[in-house]
Amino acid sequence: MTLSFSLLASAGHARRGRIHTAHGTIETPVFMPVGTAATVKAMRPEDVASTGAQIILGNTYHLMLRPTAELIARHGGLHKFMNWPGPILTDSGGFQVMSLTELRKMTEEGVRFRSHIDGSYHMLTPERSIEVQHLLDATITMAFDECTPYPATHEQAADSMRLSMRWAKRSKDAFIGRDGYGLFGIVQGSIYPDLRRESALALQEIGFPGYAIGGLAVGEGQAQMFEALEFTTPHLPDNKPRYLMGVGRPSDIVGAVARGIDMFDCVMPTRSGRTAQAFTRTGELNLRNAQFTDDPAPLDAGCSCPACSKYSRAYLRHLVKAEEILGLMLLTWHNLQFYQDLMAALRRAIEAGDSLSGDADSVVRRLLPPAEA
Amino acid sequence: MTLSFSLLASAGHARRGRIHTAHGTIETPVFMPVGTAATVKAMRPEDVASTGAQIILGNTYHLMLRPTAELIARHGGLHKFMNWPGPILTDSGGFQVMSLTELRKMTEEGVRFRSHIDGSYHMLTPERSIEVQHLLDATITMAFDECTPYPATHEQAADSMRLSMRWAKRSKDAFIGRDGYGLFGIVQGSIYPDLRRESALALQEIGFPGYAIGGLAVGEGQAQMFEALEFTTPHLPDNKPRYLMGVGRPSDIVGAVARGIDMFDCVMPTRSGRTAQAFTRTGELNLRNAQFTDDPAPLDAGCSCPACSKYSRAYLRHLVKAEEILGLMLLTWHNLQFYQDLMAALRRAIEAGDSLSGDADSVVRRLLPPAEA
Repeated sequence: MTLSFSLLASAGHARRGRIHTAHGTIETPVFMPVGTAATVKAMRPEDVASTGAQIILGNTYHLMLRPTAELIARHGGLHKFMNWPGPILTDSGGFQVMSLTELRKMTEEGVRFRSHIDGSYHMLTPERSIEVQHLLDATITMAFDECTPYPATHEQAADSMRLSMRWAKRSKDAFIGRDGYGLFGIVQGSIYPDLRRESALALQEIGFPGYAIGGLAVGEGQAQMFEALEFTTPHLPDNKPRYLMGVGRPSDIVGAVARGIDMFDCVMPTRSGRTAQAFTRTGELNLRNAQFTDDPAPLDAGCSCPACSKYSRAYLRHLVKAEEILGLMLLTWHNLQFYQDLMAALRRAIEAGDSLSGDADSVVRRLLPPAEA
Repeated sequence: MTLSFSLLASAGHARRGRIHTAHGTIETPVFMPVGTAATVKAMRPEDVASTGAQIILGNTYHLMLRPTAELIARHGGLHKFMNWPGPILTDSGGFQVMSLTELRKMTEEGVRFRSHIDGSYHMLTPERSIEVQHLLDATITMAFDECTPYPATHEQAADSMRLSMRWAKRSKDAFIGRDGYGLFGIVQGSIYPDLRRESALALQEIGFPGYAIGGLAVGEGQAQMFEALEFTTPHLPDNKPRYLMGVGRPSDIVGAVARGIDMFDCVMPTRSGRTAQAFTRTGELNLRNAQFTDDPAPLDAGCSCPACSKYSRAYLRHLVKAEEILGLMLLTWHNLQFYQDLMAALRRAIEAGDSLSGDADSVVRRLLPPAEA
């Protein structure tokens, strides 16, 4: 039987749920750290789990090229290979191959592209994407789609979305179901309400245990993204998880949860950690800033992660300035902890009947208030 | 009272001892991981400690320039700043400023040099080196010396060594003693037995709670290094710890312990870990090697570190090839574990009466045999 979803509570449009999978249970709303190349960058998997992360994301495009999905399959699948026994969601590879603008050619069949690593030619089709994700042993497999570029005319968006719907059907046909595993469809349609509705209904016609919303957070801005969620989620079933792909900043997540989204992934916390940016209860801090040179305070007094509980901002800034690996290790850890603390606060808030209404930034501050001095 | 040393057992020339310090007890023979810039690169201090490391080394040169010793003192000293509550030994900065061949000028007073970071001018004298190490709150402070270049004529080596002896006296005069802290003198004299003897006696005239041997492992080769130890250690007191600076590979350490050395430091395990080199019970492995592409075996079946207990060589090689930070984190951890396993095996062997005689490489393999398949 495919993975399943229980809706435990709701408040306004916000939902508190649980996804039951072959690799464990996922409490939603959930944030999935990105583990592109079979590693959440600069983190041991035990430490990722210690932040409260329940599921991570792997990238089909990167893994099929290096070390290859076949190698990972020979080594028992991605869970065993990378020492993450919990659920793993893999993307379809579509988003990444589309971004190889100079190196790919798209047809009805799929996308022919050249590897960014060694220039070798590869073909990614719905069937091949699903096969790769099967070899990786993904708990949640994503249908192969085209992430419609932004901006797009109505005609471009319609053509792109309808191709993705044909690919979604081929993905479903190619998917080999197993107990507690599942294949998610992806709603496209850019910023056009009629296309989003058409896409959502087309996917439900095919039938999936979960639905993602793709093609957002691609430059349209938060207000338009929230608006797109408002006219899309009413066309999605209540009894299936909803995943907003590639989102986002804390306020993006809070606003999307308020509009009925259950799942998120984003490189933001990990990438920011590697570039000295920290998300904290007192705002976003850049540790390169000279104001922290002699600052004895913890990075975020309200946080229990190692970076905050054992070091000063002065020390963290020293590591950043000296380009020490420990600096990006600790900042990555903190940012992942911040995101998981936010998700835990969101889950508690919804359980308590909080519909998360109001300005998203204000809700973030309300959920994670600065610690008392 | 200064830090003290207990000689617990000996076997041949090999010694099993204990150093009592303000920051805890150190079982010898001991290997000190190098934490150049207030971090053992790519490791959290808790994880360094988990390998069995009892004391780490900090670099005066690097720390005085960035973030500065004064800043570290304002933040409670190096132990607190970097979250390492155990003993810390700091070098004098002499070795590093001497290596700035284009950027420094040496006089009887000390060394004037330009920072490799920003080109600013600084002066390092015995008095300033000791002051910096005091500000850092070093458990073990090293006398300021000149590491005599190799090769050197007898005259050059004598002049250099006698300058270091005058600086050793000035170091002692500048040192502010505290309970459980100590200042070590450094024997110089290149490869000349008469000069090593003169230096060892000159230092004892001044009086230190520990003696280092400097100016070795600078290109003379293992055989000549061992020979230098053989004609130097007889001139050092039995009741004080002996520290061979900057050494070395596992066989260097084993051979030096067999010749009466108690303490070691080297960047080898950490630097090798960042360049895909692993020390294992089956020899040194380079994880870039294609032979490991599909190797499901652990890196070192006899090792309990995370890299060996949770991952395959295939995975570690993938991380290395993909230039993932986790790769160097795990390989660094493993190498530090290997070194600490070697030191623990040396301590047990000496307690059991093993004088570690024979070819040093063979002794390493005898102490850390390959695990049964």
